[in-house]
Amino acid sequence: MTRKEILGKTFELINDYQSSVASGEKSVINYHQPHQLKDKIDLKLPSKAGNYDNLFSDIEKYLKHSVHTSHKQFLNQLYSGENLPALIGEFITALTNTSMYTYEVAPLATLIEKELINKMCRIAGFTDGGGTFTTGGSNANMLAMMSARNKLLPDIKKNGLMGAQTLAVFVSDQSHYSFDTAANILGIGSDHVYKIKSDSHGRMLIEDLVKAIETSLIKSETPFFIAATAGTTLLGAFDPLDEIAEIAQNYKIWMHVDGSFGGSIILSTKYKYLFNGIERADSFTWNPHKLMNVPLIASVLLVKEKDRLLKNLTDLDTDYIYHDNDVQEYNLGKQSIQCGRRVDALKVWLAWRFYGDEGYAQRINRMFELANYARKKVDLYNQLQLLAEPQSLTICFTYKSDFEKENDKLNLEIRETLMKKGLSLVNYGYLKEKVAIRLVISNPDIEEKDLDEFFENFVQMGSVLENEKSIVQQVVQAEKCLIIE
Amino acid sequence: MTRKEILGKTFELINDYQSSVASGEKSVINYHQPHQLKDKIDLKLPSKAGNYDNLFSDIEKYLKHSVHTSHKQFLNQLYSGENLPALIGEFITALTNTSMYTYEVAPLATLIEKELINKMCRIAGFTDGGGTFTTGGSNANMLAMMSARNKLLPDIKKNGLMGAQTLAVFVSDQSHYSFDTAANILGIGSDHVYKIKSDSHGRMLIEDLVKAIETSLIKSETPFFIAATAGTTLLGAFDPLDEIAEIAQNYKIWMHVDGSFGGSIILSTKYKYLFNGIERADSFTWNPHKLMNVPLIASVLLVKEKDRLLKNLTDLDTDYIYHDNDVQEYNLGKQSIQCGRRVDALKVWLAWRFYGDEGYAQRINRMFELANYARKKVDLYNQLQLLAEPQSLTICFTYKSDFEKENDKLNLEIRETLMKKGLSLVNYGYLKEKVAIRLVISNPDIEEKDLDEFFENFVQMGSVLENEKSIVQQVVQAEKCLIIE
Repeated sequence: MTRKEILGKTFELINDYQSSVASGEKSVINYHQPHQLKDKIDLKLPSKAGNYDNLFSDIEKYLKHSVHTSHKQFLNQLYSGENLPALIGEFITALTNTSMYTYEVAPLATLIEKELINKMCRIAGFTDGGGTFTTGGSNANMLAMMSARNKLLPDIKKNGLMGAQTLAVFVSDQSHYSFDTAANILGIGSDHVYKIKSDSHGRMLIEDLVKAIETSLIKSETPFFIAATAGTTLLGAFDPLDEIAEIAQNYKIWMHVDGSFGGSIILSTKYKYLFNGIERADSFTWNPHKLMNVPLIASVLLVKEKDRLLKNLTDLDTDYIYHDNDVQEYNLGKQSIQCGRRVDALKVWLAWRFYGDEGYAQRINRMFELANYARKKVDLYNQLQLLAEPQSLTICFTYKSDFEKENDKLNLEIRETLMKKGLSLVNYGYLKEKVAIRLVISNPDIEEKDLDEFFENFVQMGSVLENEKSIVQQVVQAEKCLIIE
Repeated sequence: MTRKEILGKTFELINDYQSSVASGEKSVINYHQPHQLKDKIDLKLPSKAGNYDNLFSDIEKYLKHSVHTSHKQFLNQLYSGENLPALIGEFITALTNTSMYTYEVAPLATLIEKELINKMCRIAGFTDGGGTFTTGGSNANMLAMMSARNKLLPDIKKNGLMGAQTLAVFVSDQSHYSFDTAANILGIGSDHVYKIKSDSHGRMLIEDLVKAIETSLIKSETPFFIAATAGTTLLGAFDPLDEIAEIAQNYKIWMHVDGSFGGSIILSTKYKYLFNGIERADSFTWNPHKLMNVPLIASVLLVKEKDRLLKNLTDLDTDYIYHDNDVQEYNLGKQSIQCGRRVDALKVWLAWRFYGDEGYAQRINRMFELANYARKKVDLYNQLQLLAEPQSLTICFTYKSDFEKENDKLNLEIRETLMKKGLSLVNYGYLKEKVAIRLVISNPDIEEKDLDEFFENFVQMGSVLENEKSIVQQVVQAEKCLIIE
């Protein structure tokens, strides 16, 4: 096969895949347990070479057994959907395959990344800000915490944390687990990450934040980092940024905003109010790979002070890679903890130029419309109960059965059965230790009828499984009677 | 434009790009200073939407101004070349766009990653090993150091490093700067990263390692991490793993092997001897995105103890994502510090199945053949001087001029002029504070004639610039005379 034929065949596969997923012809998932899947697919890495026929056969199997994340019944993750300009951008990144460390090997990519960072800073109100693309939201959150740590104690870079004062971090009890991971990595320790209580919407309670800081000070700790969340993982809640900024300022604590999920909502003029106060923060995590629908990974950490990352992360002696010359400020590797780094900026840039600010605002607004629609659907079914009033794009609810004690189990069974039948994939979490089914709207291309279909399936499955339970329970009851007699 | 037409156009662009780069029709780089490039390209992110014509016009500009890393005069980086099966794998990863955290959303990708990790562990002699894909070699080295830190002091995860003993790290003076970065991140401090002297080949000197450990112990520090390098950044040197393993064992120190660059050489039966002793190490960084020629990023950290990563990195309470069920061991997010994680394993798996062990061994052997050829070429030119006997795939040399004091400057000028003319891109570093031109063979598709062309251009440019210098110097001399007179 010539290169042209191979590429032609590849694109045929891609087109067929996209068409059939978009039309719903393929079910969202073709579920198998690991041992079943192992039996179906030859995974072996062989001694002898294969050929292009084998390659395409492998790819066809991979496509068949993938979860179709652009399918309209994929409501499981904080990302989904398809964005063709961004997907093409990703292909071009792979094709040109360069690394973001020096201007020399990534000239235009460097300018593109800087343009994006500048624009995103302006949107966040960081008038003299800077930033970097990272390997994901967890990594961005870790860099933010590290930057705060090293600003407070600049000697750590050389001397380490041993002998330093005990540092303390404050996040809400709804925040992402990456803050615990970051505290572990950075040598701060997850025991010094205080989880502030949240209200019924999932928003951090300010009075509890103040109490926790005061308690920490009494214990002679050094509070140095508060992370507000802009779009929590379970409820999509937005912490009150302005009020948190006030506290952070009073106590001179670095304020971070984790917008890993909700960051892109700032692009909507209609919903930007959720970010009131963001301009007072010191750093901001924003993942375009979520609500801007570009393929994974596109994640950005913005910082208020332009040179903060350079100073705190990597201002070490690396002359053998970063040569002194007139393009120094364009060697982006100097403000990253990665050395080799993929060009994640290109897909974001191409998609943003394609949709424009206005197009992205519309996409975000449309997602809210769909989320509101879903929220109302929950009310329409007697069997469903909303667990929290949604602040953004996630709707948490439960199927209420007559078997209260078994209710969590029933909800998990409904979800799992829908998945195993390939009807829909929706996620769940625990809210006050109760199972909450979490439906996320992260794909502006889904339609009201897709949500109708989802809820119909969910409620119907609930009823089927409830009946089965009822029968089982009657049998158990009957058996019990027998024993008693 | 329909989706089919858009994809068709995309693949036409990709095919044209690859053909013209492979044929050398395009020069390796189309060099511009940042301000020149900014003038040529409209980088703005507009309010209004664009369209597919704009998109393709942007992509054409991006392709034109990219450094062509698969060009046969791209000898600059520790990666290069083209690998069509892997590139297609990357397209499929972007298309299916799922995340490696749970089996549920990445079923086949999970099995593929596990298969690769198992195979790579077996090759390294980690009979009961485990591992994870990481976001690059720097990240893998950091995870290794963190794993060693938390194995020694398991309480750090919760309590932090404050109050702990002073830890000490040992690497060679030729090691990658990521160990300094890691020590900064992890709160160990770069001052506690001791740089052990290396021999003329660039290999860590064992007696100096022992001395440094002893000195550290006298200072009441706790030596806990030695990183050997398998393929140093500048000289491609391999530290003597067996001897280092002996020391690590004696002092009960975690031994890491940084094979970010050279790791893939282990696939060659002919050159595997460079890794003698690797099976005694505790961890091993291996980047398939370098010498296995898959697109960035594909990076792996292998650990000798299967569960080490899980225990040390992320064994925190994350129930809202990782639900307890029968596929628990297949939820790979639990042993990663990333949450969302791209499927980097697919491209490696597809390429490995395409080439087989034998094909990859041949590719590595061919690179050595080319490196040996380049090494001999240096001897053929009186003007060139080899700076160290190469151990693997990098050849460091200098152009010797009559202007000894200005020699470094001349070498930099030769390199830069070749780049600006688009004739070749080759890197440099500092060896004993002298400029060393570093030519890397990381593309098995280049040919002897490409190397002939490179050296011919280099020497010719040297001679031209030397003549110019000579004229300038004569003028300077003449001016000096005038002044004196």
